[in-house]
Amino acid sequence: MRFVTVNGEDSAVCSVLDRGLQFGDGLFETMLCVGGAPVDFPEHWARLDEGCRRLGIECPDIRREVTAAIARWGAPRAVAKLVVTRGSTERGYRCAPSVRPNWILTITDAPKYPLAHEDRGVAVKLCRTLVSLDDPQLAGLKHLNRLPQVLARREWDDEYHDGLLTDHGGHLVEGCTSNLFLVADGALRTPDLTACGVRGIVRQKVLDHSKAIGIRCEVTTLKLRDLEHADEVFLTNSVYGIVPVGSVDGMRYRIGPTTARLLKDLCQGVYF
Amino acid sequence: MRFVTVNGEDSAVCSVLDRGLQFGDGLFETMLCVGGAPVDFPEHWARLDEGCRRLGIECPDIRREVTAAIARWGAPRAVAKLVVTRGSTERGYRCAPSVRPNWILTITDAPKYPLAHEDRGVAVKLCRTLVSLDDPQLAGLKHLNRLPQVLARREWDDEYHDGLLTDHGGHLVEGCTSNLFLVADGALRTPDLTACGVRGIVRQKVLDHSKAIGIRCEVTTLKLRDLEHADEVFLTNSVYGIVPVGSVDGMRYRIGPTTARLLKDLCQGVYF
Repeated sequence: MRFVTVNGEDSAVCSVLDRGLQFGDGLFETMLCVGGAPVDFPEHWARLDEGCRRLGIECPDIRREVTAAIARWGAPRAVAKLVVTRGSTERGYRCAPSVRPNWILTITDAPKYPLAHEDRGVAVKLCRTLVSLDDPQLAGLKHLNRLPQVLARREWDDEYHDGLLTDHGGHLVEGCTSNLFLVADGALRTPDLTACGVRGIVRQKVLDHSKAIGIRCEVTTLKLRDLEHADEVFLTNSVYGIVPVGSVDGMRYRIGPTTARLLKDLCQGVYF
Repeated sequence: MRFVTVNGEDSAVCSVLDRGLQFGDGLFETMLCVGGAPVDFPEHWARLDEGCRRLGIECPDIRREVTAAIARWGAPRAVAKLVVTRGSTERGYRCAPSVRPNWILTITDAPKYPLAHEDRGVAVKLCRTLVSLDDPQLAGLKHLNRLPQVLARREWDDEYHDGLLTDHGGHLVEGCTSNLFLVADGALRTPDLTACGVRGIVRQKVLDHSKAIGIRCEVTTLKLRDLEHADEVFLTNSVYGIVPVGSVDGMRYRIGPTTARLLKDLCQGVYF
């Protein structure tokens, strides 16, 4: 089952001149919806709004339309994906200031993750595909230029929950659809995303909450050897919240106390 | 005036689930069409075909449909843009092997460039926006992840013909919509595009022809100081062929004998 609206109208198509299609000229947000309401909607909207500002897209305030459509859909657990593009123009990169952005909202039933995910942790692959090193204007944004993620996702079929991507310098950046956290020597460590990667909403929640409860947090450069020496590993995204990692290729991890605590504090009752 | 066909059918819309829109998951070719036929069509098709192979997109052989549509359009001078995407899928990067690619052909009248372009050379801007350093699987391809070019094009309005982009190391890579050539000490020099940039069709023609007529060619690393010391500068793309550069920001250039020769040999009677 799927619901789609384009610019608030009942439609499942867009112009082939849409710059999202022509150039990947836009942004997106993916949100878990529970009981007809998107989780962390203010944070998702703030990231989208910041992205639009940085790209120079004048996104209309569609918060009411988006939340109303999600409420009408009414499924107990759904996933909403909101795409905002710069709009439709004739051939060429140039875009007149009068062009109006397009927005596309898709709502589908939430995926069901096997409960084993919370028991033993998921299997994760180390991908060969590298993330793009973008212009600093693009770093951290959830923009529509996602070919590296598409290629990385082609490296496995069903046998892994996600794949980890590194940059050209061999630094761990993120999962294909998630952010990465390690626990080592009692501290929480996650890659610095100043130069590339997507700054996730749950990633920030994990950092904020961890600091609040006295867990030492390091946003830093991480390499493969840090992964090898980690005591616990977990991934975050906006659909499943936090998922413990049981293995990355040959490396094995247990679900330790830090992951268990964050799962209980931040995810229980919302994501599962 | 504009003609659009989607998968060979008379349509100007595509599914919002098209992966070109969702992820920029596809490729494109832009071709000048003269007298109802695309210029250098075998070369454009070969690049598209190579791109599809590298991305794992099984593009059907639509050469006959594309050339027939261009012939039917019949304008003496037109520009055809062919977009091929991996197809339409539900949410997520994963794509089942059964998914069929979508192709979109748009034909518009060719733009008219002022004749001054050939007389005095065009004005070009040095952009602040950096090209993305992609995974090697993507380097050189004319893929749909074009946000750096979109941002670069926002740096000027009408006052420049194109803008030059550099990589994170300060090396000149390409124009926003073109490849870059310098002439210095009698040799032709163009940036090496092994790591990033689009390998243009006219770029390759210029290199092949120059070698054939005894002009020394260097595909190499170029920095701003090379531009400062160049005797001649020109840009290439598939719509205008070769255009001499009269200035890059404060630096001024004359249309020298090498540019004039290549214009005469490769462009006269085709592009102007």
